[in-house]
Amino acid sequence: MNECVFCKIVKGEIPSDKVYEDDNFFAFLDINPNNLGHSLIIPKKHYENIYNLPDEILKKIAPLIKKIAVAAKNGVNADGVNIIMNNDGAAGQIVPHAHFHIIPRFADDGLRHWPGKQYANKEESESVTEKIKKELA
Amino acid sequence: MNECVFCKIVKGEIPSDKVYEDDNFFAFLDINPNNLGHSLIIPKKHYENIYNLPDEILKKIAPLIKKIAVAAKNGVNADGVNIIMNNDGAAGQIVPHAHFHIIPRFADDGLRHWPGKQYANKEESESVTEKIKKELA
Repeated sequence: MNECVFCKIVKGEIPSDKVYEDDNFFAFLDINPNNLGHSLIIPKKHYENIYNLPDEILKKIAPLIKKIAVAAKNGVNADGVNIIMNNDGAAGQIVPHAHFHIIPRFADDGLRHWPGKQYANKEESESVTEKIKKELA
Repeated sequence: MNECVFCKIVKGEIPSDKVYEDDNFFAFLDINPNNLGHSLIIPKKHYENIYNLPDEILKKIAPLIKKIAVAAKNGVNADGVNIIMNNDGAAGQIVPHAHFHIIPRFADDGLRHWPGKQYANKEESESVTEKIKKELA
């Protein structure tokens, strides 16, 4: 992916505020942070989103996400932290190179969570449950 | 954690729309979904949030999160999917039992993402980077 902005960041062709790097992963500050310390963790190899991220990569990145979440939270003295992965444009993914957002949160930061809805009735939630179970079967 | 609502769901003491269960993990529909098919994945054992989730649990749950994210997305014919973990009340965590949200997304669902900010200058972003790197050292 010659044109991928995150691939270019990994290669150093685009500068970034790097917080972490190892053989497989790279983490850096989001340039449009929701809050101070908002970091992105990416596999160096190009995968578009979670759908095609190999399990071996997921097993390695998960403990690293914890480590960087704790470091970002403590580094900016935050009160909490969100870990967010957006997959596809409809889910807010802007750069098509799989990335995990680490967002330090403060008690009074004003970031609002999405409203909860209700299933119309028990039949509706059971129908959705069955559809998901069928996909998992 | 006798009083934990998610521990009770795991034990079947509180009913849920279960989409998946194995020896270590349990997944069910969120009762206040952001969208149809919004599911929660939890370790059966009680851990409060990411800070104290053992790496061994993280390595096992990560591929399962992918699997359920794909199943939920496909099950409701969504256009994308968010994976979200809120840690601490300041980050929107309501139930203090570590859980990952799987939120199917639709192109026109109206859920808005948080606004991006800017670092005041290069010194500020570099200072934050150094603080996070120090925590990781």
